[in-house]
Amino acid sequence: MKLNIALLAGDGIGPEVIDQAVKVSDAVAKKFGHEINWTSALTGACAIDAVGEPYPDETHEICMAADAVLFGAIGHPRFDNDPKATVRPEQGLLKMRKKLGLYANVRPTFTFPSLIDNSPLKRERIEGTDLIILRELTGGIYFGERGRKDDGNTAFDTCTYTREEIQRLAKLGFEMAMTRGKKLCCVDKANVLESSRLWRETVQDMEKDFPEVTVSYEFVDAVAMRLVQWPSSYDVIITENLFGDILTDEASVISGSMGLMPSASVGVHTSLYEPIHGSYPQAAGKDIANPLATVLSAAMMFEDAFGLKEEAEAIRAVVNKSLAEGIVTEDLAGKNKTYKTSEVGDWLAAHI
Amino acid sequence: MKLNIALLAGDGIGPEVIDQAVKVSDAVAKKFGHEINWTSALTGACAIDAVGEPYPDETHEICMAADAVLFGAIGHPRFDNDPKATVRPEQGLLKMRKKLGLYANVRPTFTFPSLIDNSPLKRERIEGTDLIILRELTGGIYFGERGRKDDGNTAFDTCTYTREEIQRLAKLGFEMAMTRGKKLCCVDKANVLESSRLWRETVQDMEKDFPEVTVSYEFVDAVAMRLVQWPSSYDVIITENLFGDILTDEASVISGSMGLMPSASVGVHTSLYEPIHGSYPQAAGKDIANPLATVLSAAMMFEDAFGLKEEAEAIRAVVNKSLAEGIVTEDLAGKNKTYKTSEVGDWLAAHI
Ligand SMILES: CC(C)[C@H](C(=O)O)[C@@H](O)C(=O)O
Ligand SMILES: CC(C)[C@H](C(=O)O)[C@@H](O)C(=O)O
Repeated sequence: MKLNIALLAGDGIGPEVIDQAVKVSDAVAKKFGHEINWTSALTGACAIDAVGEPYPDETHEICMAADAVLFGAIGHPRFDNDPKATVRPEQGLLKMRKKLGLYANVRPTFTFPSLIDNSPLKRERIEGTDLIILRELTGGIYFGERGRKDDGNTAFDTCTYTREEIQRLAKLGFEMAMTRGKKLCCVDKANVLESSRLWRETVQDMEKDFPEVTVSYEFVDAVAMRLVQWPSSYDVIITENLFGDILTDEASVISGSMGLMPSASVGVHTSLYEPIHGSYPQAAGKDIANPLATVLSAAMMFEDAFGLKEEAEAIRAVVNKSLAEGIVTEDLAGKNKTYKTSEVGDWLAAHI
Repeated sequence: MKLNIALLAGDGIGPEVIDQAVKVSDAVAKKFGHEINWTSALTGACAIDAVGEPYPDETHEICMAADAVLFGAIGHPRFDNDPKATVRPEQGLLKMRKKLGLYANVRPTFTFPSLIDNSPLKRERIEGTDLIILRELTGGIYFGERGRKDDGNTAFDTCTYTREEIQRLAKLGFEMAMTRGKKLCCVDKANVLESSRLWRETVQDMEKDFPEVTVSYEFVDAVAMRLVQWPSSYDVIITENLFGDILTDEASVISGSMGLMPSASVGVHTSLYEPIHGSYPQAAGKDIANPLATVLSAAMMFEDAFGLKEEAEAIRAVVNKSLAEGIVTEDLAGKNKTYKTSEVGDWLAAHI
């Protein structure tokens, strides 16, 4: 099979972790007789520096032409405390999501038995956790009208949702639940927000099409609590963009395996795979970042974008092997020997 | 001193826990020679049942005439899954906040040494945590324009903030930080939202008036993570209404002492004191709910609304004593003897 993959390394540790995912993917492709055609493109702060724009048209064309996109991370602290900056790396991310129609961010949270003691939660709280948060990614307050009034002294943002946007995301959630624990939790703030009431109404109307799925409705504040208290009680969670931003990040730290969590963004035009950790600028260029989340994102890509399940399993198996044998970066090494980012990548590629 | 207090017991376990706070407050008043004049009023689902309206005008007048308001909890599950219900208990809460001008919700999260093992977090993560979240309570998306378009198939909500609203809340935050650890964290989503950029800009402008306070700016998704990872790194957190709703609830469960956390809502016209737990309808009428959060809310009221610090300390001391001696409700009893809600209240009042 020929696989055309757009490669968006981005900023910070992005390029380093992407390099390892490329090595591992090439090794898998070789083993299984596939041919990968990688096309690199700029995005984020590095694209602003190069062409003054965080998601250049050329990058968009490369993504549109690809079968899948493998993404590192973007962002640079020099933009964070400057509320008046007019061009921001994050705008590139939002533009990319919108233009590629990446409407569903799929974020699994699961545990690795060998890493469970890294969790800030007690073992008995986190054990058995295996949940997926499906975050709507191209609607809501991220993309509504916003601006200033009264000489800049009043600011507003608008959260808008249409029934179709909700149905599209919820359908994916119901289907995913059917392949797993058959439980779906719709998270909203329907006791206050009109957009949340539309979410709840729409999902309630869809229940009859998936009679086997047990659906619950919970308020976002209650879920922020229960994710810490009883994360293993969840199966598939669906929610709107801003709530998803907060809850996926909260969920990511409870497993103790933040540096290992992959994600997918399912799109109308293509799909994108990326580690959930950010650009981690303090570590950039030091060859110390953990590449496993990006490698596991490549595994998700093989399985979901290309239907290559065996290849995905081969990647997951070699990752488990590296964990078992302690071939890990400093964040996971404890008192044991530490490997460099590139050494972990080399080891994984060699042991596929 | 004459203390005029409006008593809003509300729904679910509200009346039971409020009863105990009244007993303890009366005992303190007697001991220190004060006279409390309690005036009860309806709010929440019980007010809807009685007069068709969750925050009746009569209740508002009673609150306006009082020096402080002691509040239980409101809400009833029969409203939760009915997105079309037109009168909801929560509307009463929002109307009350707005009409009383309760612009700042003050939510401390701290630990009780004897309860630290109840926390879902590991001991070393939670030990030493002592933070306050200041949530803006009368602005933002809770009170913006909202509605439907396109035959009900599009829903929108608007988040609006003015510079004055932000200044008022932030000023309280800076002042509070000055009496504590002198650290202030402003939580927003300034990489996406215009209202968040106004928050950041406004707080940045105020930094010069409080040169001793170290101010940091963090994105809400990052804070949702760090609250679970390193809660003890925070001192005072200020944030807008919706982020505050989510983060205060998340923070409330990490201490392991959810049933003990009090809160205050500081207002233009009066201030309101309430436990942070909800109406817990499953336990209503069973005399099993933990009254300590409400009793500690009364302590906050003595100190903050009336400047009666000694009286507040007397309440806190007797609460600590009850914990040390195991005079506790079932949620805290473990394998030991369990006391009823009313028994705990009686014991506290007798030991003031
Ligand atoms: C960088 C930011 C705009 C982005 C978001 O809020 O969506 C990030 O937090 C994420 O979750 O991918
Ligand atoms: C009941 C609801 C409207 C309310 C809120 O969101 O403010 C509650 O969650 C709270 O935090 O007091």
